[in-house]
Amino acid sequence: MKSHRQELWMHVPSRRGFVNITPQVEEAVRASGVQEGLALVNAMHITASVFINNDEPGLHQDYEQWLEQLAPHEPVSRYRHNRTGEDNGDAHLKRQIMGREVLVAITGRRLDLDPWEQIFYGEFDGRRRKRVLIKILGI
Amino acid sequence: MKSHRQELWMHVPSRRGFVNITPQVEEAVRASGVQEGLALVNAMHITASVFINNDEPGLHQDYEQWLEQLAPHEPVSRYRHNRTGEDNGDAHLKRQIMGREVLVAITGRRLDLDPWEQIFYGEFDGRRRKRVLIKILGI
Amino acid sequence: MKSHRQELWMHVPSRRGFVNITPQVEEAVRASGVQEGLALVNAMHITASVFINNDEPGLHQDYEQWLEQLAPHEPVSRYRHNRTGEDNGDAHLKRQIMGREVLVAITGRRLDLDPWEQIFYGEFDGRRRKRVLIKILGI
Repeated sequence: MKSHRQELWMHVPSRRGFVNITPQVEEAVRASGVQEGLALVNAMHITASVFINNDEPGLHQDYEQWLEQLAPHEPVSRYRHNRTGEDNGDAHLKRQIMGREVLVAITGRRLDLDPWEQIFYGEFDGRRRKRVLIKILGI
Repeated sequence: MKSHRQELWMHVPSRRGFVNITPQVEEAVRASGVQEGLALVNAMHITASVFINNDEPGLHQDYEQWLEQLAPHEPVSRYRHNRTGEDNGDAHLKRQIMGREVLVAITGRRLDLDPWEQIFYGEFDGRRRKRVLIKILGI
Repeated sequence: MKSHRQELWMHVPSRRGFVNITPQVEEAVRASGVQEGLALVNAMHITASVFINNDEPGLHQDYEQWLEQLAPHEPVSRYRHNRTGEDNGDAHLKRQIMGREVLVAITGRRLDLDPWEQIFYGEFDGRRRKRVLIKILGI
């Protein structure tokens, strides 16, 4: 059995944004040498997500607007968490909707994804460097 | 180590619906010959979910109504994604609430689930054939 | 390859609450002897969650208040599921927001988590004993 670990560094220059990381995960699968297995991809930060959906800018604007409705950033006084001096209370809620991690099958040395399935990093408290973990297990 | 891959074809005749796929996943575990391991079950489409909950029709009506409140189908002009000619913008949001995938332990050649835990396919843009992927890894 | 299975018994004395189970999961990893692998941690009940976020009491109050807004407990007649005699319809919805399971990488015999990432059991229908499953696979 083989195991492979890799980190991606993300830097989203705005508070919120979505970044397609499918090519980097595909590259990690190649580097792992795994033919059949599983690839875990997770945000290492609790105000960010990794999720799978469509690479379509209109949809990403829909997500942005919808998440702001469900968990508005302002007023920051709305969240008790922000009494600690943070202003990212909303980001911890948005991340629960979009999820922390995805698990993708590896088949024939490749990510076993439908072409519309793309892996995204979702940032909800950006403007600093944050990490994504890729852990691959298989044969 | 053993690896097993299988697809299920789904066809929900209405726009939205929930289908219990636990027997098919249990059958895939038997076919895999895996005694101890993990079974990934994921929707291969980005307007559908795989999730675990109770097989109770009243609850499914509650989910249907709740998801419509959180992300209404109409007016379809509400979603920028629908400017691409689609009318399924809401389905991409609903799927984020219900999730893309579940990972289930395999113990003693069986799905390691409490009896109330049933695996469902959640369709939010049906009336066509769509796929679910089962990937099993273990010994 | 190694496989390890362990259950945790939870008892939250109120209807809802969050419990940090990171030490117990770390202990299970030690007990497994796995150096490199994956640890699945899932609620075995459909009115509870396992999720990863910050161990900060203000944030937990934010989650509590936010989940009550998204899926209020009362009036219990609001949910068709409660016609079965239950009063936990809301708990089945809250659990979908917070998720059923997390999958954590194991690296160098330890949970591969950022220090802010803590594993929580989220209870939405407590006052009785419920279980969490830990399943570990690796080398």
